[in-house]
Amino acid sequence: MKSDILQKELLNILGDRFSESESVRTNYSRGEDIFDPVLPQAVVFPNNNEEISKIIKLCNNNNVPITPFGTGTSLEGHALGNQNGITISLENMNKILKINEEDFDCRVQAYVTRKQLNEELKDKGLFFPIDPGADASLGGMASTSASGTMAVRYGTMKTVVSGLTVILPNGEIINTGVRTKKTSAGYNLTNLFIGSEGTLGIISEVHLRLSPIPENIMSAVCHFPNLESSVQAAQEIIQYGIPVARIEMLNKDQMEISINYSNLQNMEIKPTLFFEFHGSESSNKESIEIAQEITKNNQGTEFKWAQSTEEKNKIWQARHDAYYAVKSQGNNIRVYTTDVCVPISNLVECIKFAENEISNYGLKAPMVGHVGDGNFHAAIIYDPKKKEDYKMIRDFSDKLVEKALTLEGTVTGEHGVGVQKKDYLLKEHPDNISLMKSIKKTIDPNNIMNPGKIFD
Amino acid sequence: MKSDILQKELLNILGDRFSESESVRTNYSRGEDIFDPVLPQAVVFPNNNEEISKIIKLCNNNNVPITPFGTGTSLEGHALGNQNGITISLENMNKILKINEEDFDCRVQAYVTRKQLNEELKDKGLFFPIDPGADASLGGMASTSASGTMAVRYGTMKTVVSGLTVILPNGEIINTGVRTKKTSAGYNLTNLFIGSEGTLGIISEVHLRLSPIPENIMSAVCHFPNLESSVQAAQEIIQYGIPVARIEMLNKDQMEISINYSNLQNMEIKPTLFFEFHGSESSNKESIEIAQEITKNNQGTEFKWAQSTEEKNKIWQARHDAYYAVKSQGNNIRVYTTDVCVPISNLVECIKFAENEISNYGLKAPMVGHVGDGNFHAAIIYDPKKKEDYKMIRDFSDKLVEKALTLEGTVTGEHGVGVQKKDYLLKEHPDNISLMKSIKKTIDPNNIMNPGKIFD
Repeated sequence: MKSDILQKELLNILGDRFSESESVRTNYSRGEDIFDPVLPQAVVFPNNNEEISKIIKLCNNNNVPITPFGTGTSLEGHALGNQNGITISLENMNKILKINEEDFDCRVQAYVTRKQLNEELKDKGLFFPIDPGADASLGGMASTSASGTMAVRYGTMKTVVSGLTVILPNGEIINTGVRTKKTSAGYNLTNLFIGSEGTLGIISEVHLRLSPIPENIMSAVCHFPNLESSVQAAQEIIQYGIPVARIEMLNKDQMEISINYSNLQNMEIKPTLFFEFHGSESSNKESIEIAQEITKNNQGTEFKWAQSTEEKNKIWQARHDAYYAVKSQGNNIRVYTTDVCVPISNLVECIKFAENEISNYGLKAPMVGHVGDGNFHAAIIYDPKKKEDYKMIRDFSDKLVEKALTLEGTVTGEHGVGVQKKDYLLKEHPDNISLMKSIKKTIDPNNIMNPGKIFD
Repeated sequence: MKSDILQKELLNILGDRFSESESVRTNYSRGEDIFDPVLPQAVVFPNNNEEISKIIKLCNNNNVPITPFGTGTSLEGHALGNQNGITISLENMNKILKINEEDFDCRVQAYVTRKQLNEELKDKGLFFPIDPGADASLGGMASTSASGTMAVRYGTMKTVVSGLTVILPNGEIINTGVRTKKTSAGYNLTNLFIGSEGTLGIISEVHLRLSPIPENIMSAVCHFPNLESSVQAAQEIIQYGIPVARIEMLNKDQMEISINYSNLQNMEIKPTLFFEFHGSESSNKESIEIAQEITKNNQGTEFKWAQSTEEKNKIWQARHDAYYAVKSQGNNIRVYTTDVCVPISNLVECIKFAENEISNYGLKAPMVGHVGDGNFHAAIIYDPKKKEDYKMIRDFSDKLVEKALTLEGTVTGEHGVGVQKKDYLLKEHPDNISLMKSIKKTIDPNNIMNPGKIFD
């Protein structure tokens, strides 16, 4: 490390949980994003809140930047190291602290992943519904305000997190929020930290609301002759008020890739909707009847039902693996992912625009969409050595963002801003940035917490 | 006004929408709370964001405190005037700006009330579900993070507000949030202002998510032999996962008062649950069957069904009028209202504790509860001339708050902190106050926005 004193003090606190080895620093130098790795000076592995507090205080006193690191599954550069700083891996903070079965809530340490939690919950009749593609850590998901395929029914991290433990840049350990279903006790600090992308402090514990496992779960797949009709069907289903639990679009290119990657049987290479219905047998029956009528009117095929739990899991794992399927399309490729989200009534227009521009630019861009929320991703494969290719992709991305903003949308539905979308955030909220920055400056006056992310 | 210059400048901006008359100042000197009125130096009635911005800038430059005033239905002293300041009534900001039927959202000016909005929505198949007792303004409801009888199903202002227009203490007009169902674009400023009780700026516009009017609505009433069995039944219904739209408790004293005040026919003076089920006919049938079985097991009577829309409205108006019914119990009385909220599994214990202490203190305290959320109110009638009575009530309230906190609850489920619960907030979040205050100081360095509310 540049500072011998800091190195010594960190060693004192952490012993062999402090590492300066190049291989470790490389492992914690980036997320699953398109950026070149940036190696921090050291990586530390604290075991508890008190150790995190000591580390932060030290860094704050020495003006050393900190990058918090969860599972490293960010797509936006959140986890990129800082060459003058250290990276704090939360991986030892992986315990489920408490499950309150009677109240449908739990408290976990930041590194507990969504799958780990659901594994623990499944015998208790409860589940945690927020499911980004990756098996991300719940602290990371809180930091980026993540969502996933079930947000259409169960909300996002903003709605299911009821409290946090946060270690502030001055070393203070605070507990925000409360276990109750509602509270009006002072400023909503919990939701200030959710989506703050590690720039205001380190989230070390997360209190979560859980959902009862539905009595009846039905999963189906429906193919369409073209992208527009699939999205139109999704829009009409939402506008009808059907309480679908999941309604996911995969375009033709994505279906081709996913059928191969996930070995999906009996599926067509066509624009497709994946559905899931949660409820009682009879309420699902009602929902499904209407959904089928709407899809049929939009030229959709008969629903193909997943007959067993294994089949259901296979479909949804394929959906969750969509990004990895795209990444597997070549060695040394990178995948640029867009993340705009628009009001549902503007979704057809926005997706058609994206499809046309992808074709105009001659890009290869499989698309998936959380279409019930108006959110979709184009995953654009490119060769990082070809600088012009990146320029063209960014050009396409700029246009799509402009279009989404004219359609009253947002530049990021769920991936966050990170490094990649700082310019876009300025376009979406030009009048908010000054306030955001003044909050940042108040809480983190030395700018040690994940500097260069969200805004400069 | 103390300052002639300020008086002149406000007159310039507002003309006859600036008033120093004692009767006007008296009308805007308090909410529906227990406090003695505090007359501001003047009351102003701006027509638009730009006027509010000019007023705030003037006040900021002259260090003159501002109290924002909606319908004045706060129970916690939020709307109490400041003797050195001005009160800004939002009552001219009463327009519904846009309803997006296809996307289930709308934008309103701050003074639009929940009933006004629902009147406008009813022909469009949509409704707005957050319903505190009063016909409050939506800006005020955002400021206090309000909820009501339907929060158990539809959430609170925190979950249904997707964006705001806020005028900051420096006069800047900012638009937070976005129309989409989700976003991860930077800090969640919208939720920072929700529940900030006018201490960070003035909310002038609110963007709201709406809900489709359910196909089938069923309302019923069920009496119980004692309070504990009614609350136990509610707890079991929630824990079963039944998606009730409303589940409200009224204790024996409240039933006696409400039967008289609201002229309810065919009701017994006994602890009672008011239910409402929203869904399809068949899904409601399923929910009702289980709810009836649970209430029966807890010694509840057969459900008494509201047979017509008028009957339904009458029941729910009676519930919304519960506080006014208590207030009508005497002239010159005041009503102290508690607002604790606990995890549902601790609700029986908390309500039993309240009931016992009310009896120990010999108080008259009708109780109502949003029991699906773990939130309940004791409304304690007293004579403000008898100082000892107030002391005793506050003593009871202190004990109840302590009990709720040991049960992992919050000191305010939905009414906010205001003036009344500043001590209680310190007890609930001792480690949060410093951060809340630093945010306040950053945004409002001269402490002009509703000073003395939330914290000192």
